[in-house]
Amino acid sequence: MKNSSMRISYPSSQKIYVKGKMHDISVGMRQVSLLDTVSVESGVEKREKNLPVVIYDTSGAYSDGNLAIDTGKGLPRLREPWVERRGDTEALPSFSSAYCRKRLADASLDAVRFPLVNLPRRASQGKNITQMYYAQQGVITPEMEYVAIRENVRNEALGISSHITPEFVRSEVAAGRAVIPANINHPEAEPMIIGANFLVKINTNIGSSALSSGIDEEVKKAVWSCKWGGDTLMDLSTGDNIHETREWIIRNMPVPVGTVPVYQALEKVNGKIADLCWEVYRDTLVEQCEQGVDYFTIHAGLLRAHLPLVRRRTTGIVSRGGSIIAGWMAQRGEENFFYTRFGEICKILQQYDVAVSLGDGLRPGSIRDANDDAQLAELAVLGELTKTAWEHHVQVLIEGPGHVPMHKIKANMDEQLSRCHGAPFYTLGPLTTDVAPGYDHITSAIGAAQIAWYGTAMICYVTPKEHLGLPGAEDVRAGVIAYKIAAHAADLAKGHPGAQVRDDALSKARFDFRWRDQINLSLDPERALEYYTAGRTGDESDHCTMCGPHFCAMKLTKEACNFAQPELKN
Amino acid sequence: MKNSSMRISYPSSQKIYVKGKMHDISVGMRQVSLLDTVSVESGVEKREKNLPVVIYDTSGAYSDGNLAIDTGKGLPRLREPWVERRGDTEALPSFSSAYCRKRLADASLDAVRFPLVNLPRRASQGKNITQMYYAQQGVITPEMEYVAIRENVRNEALGISSHITPEFVRSEVAAGRAVIPANINHPEAEPMIIGANFLVKINTNIGSSALSSGIDEEVKKAVWSCKWGGDTLMDLSTGDNIHETREWIIRNMPVPVGTVPVYQALEKVNGKIADLCWEVYRDTLVEQCEQGVDYFTIHAGLLRAHLPLVRRRTTGIVSRGGSIIAGWMAQRGEENFFYTRFGEICKILQQYDVAVSLGDGLRPGSIRDANDDAQLAELAVLGELTKTAWEHHVQVLIEGPGHVPMHKIKANMDEQLSRCHGAPFYTLGPLTTDVAPGYDHITSAIGAAQIAWYGTAMICYVTPKEHLGLPGAEDVRAGVIAYKIAAHAADLAKGHPGAQVRDDALSKARFDFRWRDQINLSLDPERALEYYTAGRTGDESDHCTMCGPHFCAMKLTKEACNFAQPELKN
Repeated sequence: MKNSSMRISYPSSQKIYVKGKMHDISVGMRQVSLLDTVSVESGVEKREKNLPVVIYDTSGAYSDGNLAIDTGKGLPRLREPWVERRGDTEALPSFSSAYCRKRLADASLDAVRFPLVNLPRRASQGKNITQMYYAQQGVITPEMEYVAIRENVRNEALGISSHITPEFVRSEVAAGRAVIPANINHPEAEPMIIGANFLVKINTNIGSSALSSGIDEEVKKAVWSCKWGGDTLMDLSTGDNIHETREWIIRNMPVPVGTVPVYQALEKVNGKIADLCWEVYRDTLVEQCEQGVDYFTIHAGLLRAHLPLVRRRTTGIVSRGGSIIAGWMAQRGEENFFYTRFGEICKILQQYDVAVSLGDGLRPGSIRDANDDAQLAELAVLGELTKTAWEHHVQVLIEGPGHVPMHKIKANMDEQLSRCHGAPFYTLGPLTTDVAPGYDHITSAIGAAQIAWYGTAMICYVTPKEHLGLPGAEDVRAGVIAYKIAAHAADLAKGHPGAQVRDDALSKARFDFRWRDQINLSLDPERALEYYTAGRTGDESDHCTMCGPHFCAMKLTKEACNFAQPELKN
Repeated sequence: MKNSSMRISYPSSQKIYVKGKMHDISVGMRQVSLLDTVSVESGVEKREKNLPVVIYDTSGAYSDGNLAIDTGKGLPRLREPWVERRGDTEALPSFSSAYCRKRLADASLDAVRFPLVNLPRRASQGKNITQMYYAQQGVITPEMEYVAIRENVRNEALGISSHITPEFVRSEVAAGRAVIPANINHPEAEPMIIGANFLVKINTNIGSSALSSGIDEEVKKAVWSCKWGGDTLMDLSTGDNIHETREWIIRNMPVPVGTVPVYQALEKVNGKIADLCWEVYRDTLVEQCEQGVDYFTIHAGLLRAHLPLVRRRTTGIVSRGGSIIAGWMAQRGEENFFYTRFGEICKILQQYDVAVSLGDGLRPGSIRDANDDAQLAELAVLGELTKTAWEHHVQVLIEGPGHVPMHKIKANMDEQLSRCHGAPFYTLGPLTTDVAPGYDHITSAIGAAQIAWYGTAMICYVTPKEHLGLPGAEDVRAGVIAYKIAAHAADLAKGHPGAQVRDDALSKARFDFRWRDQINLSLDPERALEYYTAGRTGDESDHCTMCGPHFCAMKLTKEACNFAQPELKN
C-alpha cells in the first residue's frame, strides 16, 4: 500500500486546531477559505470579505500535511497520554486472548500481520474506567472537552450561542443519553459523541467476506469512508485473517471502530452454529477489546420466546447476528447466551471502556414486517439490558430498523425512547420502501433523515449495492454522502447550533456566482466540480450553467430588486 | 431518429389492458410474471404460485409490442373520439396564433418540422369543456373512469377495497381537489390525475437551452422519462426552434405536457424583458394551447409589492419565470400583467381545457429563505387566483418550494391547503439542505417524500445536475427513480389502496431467493441486474451475494424458525 495514496485533501481547505481550555488538547477541524464578494454599485467596485467556514472533520491526520502517514506504523496515539495520566489502567505484559496469542505466534501470518505489536491496557483491579463512570463522578475528561469543542466547530468565534459545553457533555454521558466510544486500546481515535442532543453521526460498514477482498482494500475503504465524513466504522469482515485485517484497520482509523464479535466467533468454530459457546465468544470479546474495538454489536435481546413470532413474517430475520443466535437457540434448545451471560459480558467491556450496541436481531426486513410484535418484543428486552449495562457503567447504544414506512417511523423513535430509558438510538436507515434495490441509499436516506430529526443519534449508512452485492469504493462514497445529507438535514431541522452556517455560506456563494466557493463548500467537491466542468461552456461569472445568460433567475433578480451588481470579470 | 430505439421493454412484463365499465376505454398496465415459490418440506417438493404483479404504467404505446411506433407520425390519438363524441368542440380550419402560422409557412424550418399537421380543436362558442366543468355538472367522463381504473391498478382483482371510484374521481375534480390535465389538442396523452387523494405523481423537466441539444435528443429524453415512470413532463426549452421541438414532443408523449409560456414569449422579443407584452404572451398561450400543452406554469402571484421583500433574502428569486416577471415589473414600473390579465388568460385556457399551474416565483432558493414573508405573501395571491380560475372552470395546480428544512415542510403544506382552498400542491423537492450540489436528487427526495406524505399531489424531480449543469439522459433516470421512490414511499405512508402489493411481492421474492423476481419487480430492473450480476460468484440460490453462504441471515432464519426449506436447485 502506498502511504502517499492515503493522504486526504480538500480544496481551498486547511487543517486547523482548536485548543482546549481545561485540558491540553487540540481539536482538528477543516477550514475552507472563501473568495470576496465583488460587486459594482454606481460604477464603483465593492468588495466584501467572506469569513472562512469551518467544518467538522473526520479525516484525522490524513488531511494534515504536517503529519507523516505510515500505515505500517499507524496513526498518532492521541489519547494514550490521557489514559496513562488517569492512572487507573495497567499495561499488560501480553494479550489475554488465547486466540490472539496463537495468531501472533504463527509465522505463516507474518506477511499479512500489522508490523508493530502494541501491547494492551486494561483497567487496574477494582477500577472503573468508562467515560460514563467518570461522568457520573462529575469528572470532565479530555475526551468530553474534546467533543464539546468539536461539536461547536467555531460557534463561539461566530457568536452563535450553544448549549454544548464540556459540562453538558458530561451530564449527557452520565445520564446515558450520549456515548463516547473510546476503548483505551484505540488511542488513535479522535473522541466523538453519539447522542440525540449532538450532531447526528453516521456509521459506515465495510469488511471482507468469504466472497471478497484483501486487507489493503479494506484499509483503503476505511480511510475513504473517513474522507467523505463517516463518523464511526464497523468492520464486518467474515473472511480469512479477520484478526489481522482488524488490526490494520484499527491502527489506522481516526474514528471509533465497531464489530459484531459473533461473526468471528462463528469462524472459529468453522461456521458450525451449534458449536458456538461462551468460551469461544468470551475469548473473542477479550481479543477484540485488547485490539481496540470501540463498540460491539451484541444481539442479546432476541430470546427463544420470540422465535415463533418470526414465522408470521414476510422476511423472517434479516440481521446476520440475529439469525446466528436464532439458529443457535433452535439447534441447542437453549436460551440466548448473550442474554444469560450479559452481566459477564459487561464485566469484560467495562475493563476497556468498550460500549455495547444492543443489536436488533429482529429488525424488520420489509415494509410488511415493520413495527411488528417480534420487533417490539425484542426492543423491550433491550431496555432491560440497558439497565444492566448501566449498572456496570458500560455505555450503551440501541440498534434500530431496518425497513419502515414513513408513517411508522415516529413510533419507532417513541418506543425506543420509552423502553430504553433515553439510551442513544442507532438505526440502519430505515428504508421507506422495498421496491428500489440499486437505490437503497436513497430509500433509506429518506427514512434516516426523518428518524434522526425525531431523535436518532447515529444512522448507519446503506449503499446502492444493499441487497444485491458488496459495496466497492464508489458505493461507499455514495452511501456516505447520502447519509451525510440525511444527518445534516436532521441537524438543521433540530436546530443544532451553527449547523446552518455552511448552508448559508454555500447559498451566498451561489447567489454571488462564486462557483469555486459553492463547489468547495459542498459535501463532495470533487463530484460537484466534475458536473460543473462538464456543463461549462465559457464565462459563467454572472449566470449559471443551467439556464444560460439570458434566463438566469439570479442575474435577473439582482437587476429587478436593485441588488448590487456582480462584478462580471470576477 | 430510429423508431425502433424508442421501444420500451421491461423484463418478464407484458402490457395488459383493463376495460372500462361505463365507457369504451382500455387502460394500459404492466403485468410482471413471477416464478413459483419452491420449497422442500420433509423431503417433498412444494410449489406455490405467486400472482403476477400489475404496475401503474406511464410508458404508453412504447411498451406495447402490438402497436407500431413511428415518431414521425406520433402516438395513437387515444382521446380524439372521446372529445369528438362530446360534440362541444369544433375543428378549426387553421391555427389561431399568428406566430404559429408564420412558422408553418417558413420553408427553412421543413428540416426540423414534425411531418404531419394536426389542425387544432377549440370549444364551440359558449361551451364549457373542462374536466372540472363536466365534473361539476355531474358528468363522469371517459377520462375520469380511465383514471379511476388506472389508480386502482388491479385492486379489485386482489380483493383490496378502494375508495377510488369513477364517482369519487368526479367529485374530487369538481371540488378542485384534483386535476386531470387533458388539453383536447393532446389526445395522445393517457388520462392521469393529480390530487392528494390519489397516487403521488412525479413531473420531470427536460428542454433544450441556448447551451444545449437537438430535437432528437429532447424527444428521446422525454420518452426515456416515461420509461422510468415520469407522470407528466415539462418542456422548458429556451433555445432555437422551441415551437418545432414542442410539436415533436407533444405528438409523441403519452403523458401530459406542461410549459412555462413566458420563456418562449421572451424569445420572441429577443430576450428583452421590457419588450414583453400581453399581445405576444397571449399569442404564445394560444399557440401552445393549440399544439396541445396540457398545463401552463404562470407566475401570476408575484406582485410589485413583493419585490422589496426579496432584498432581504440570501438567494433572491431563483424561479426563472419569477425573475423574468420581476424584471419586467421593475423595468416597466407596472403591475405583473399575468395578474392583471388573469381573467383573460383563464378565458383562453378554458377553451382547450389547459390547466393552470400557478407558479411560485418567490419559492425559496436556500434554507435561509424558506417560509419567509416573500414566499407566504405570494402564496396568498395564489389562493385568490385559484378562485378566479375556478370561476372559469379552469383546473388549478399550485406550485411550491424549493429549499425547505424538514421542520418547516409541514407548515408549507398547511399554509397551501388553507390559503389555496384545497387545490393540488405541486412542489419542486423541497431540498432539505443546500450543501450537496451533485446530489440534489437526494437532498430533495428527502423533502419530496415528506411533503407528498403530508398531501402534496405531484412532486417535480430534481436531478444530480441541479445547480451545476443541464441533465443528460442518465441524470434524468437518476432523478426520476429518486422521485419514484419518494412518491411510492408517500403512497405507502398515506395508505394508498394496493400500494404495498409491490413491496410485499418483492420482499417475498427476496426471502425466497427468487432473484429474478426481485430484480424484475424493482423500480429500475436494469440497474438492479447490473449490480447483482457484478457481485455474483456462483450459485446464490439459497443465500445472497452480500454475506455468502455461511452468513446468510435469511437462510439461517429458515432453519431456525422451521420455515419450509428453499429448493436449492431453483
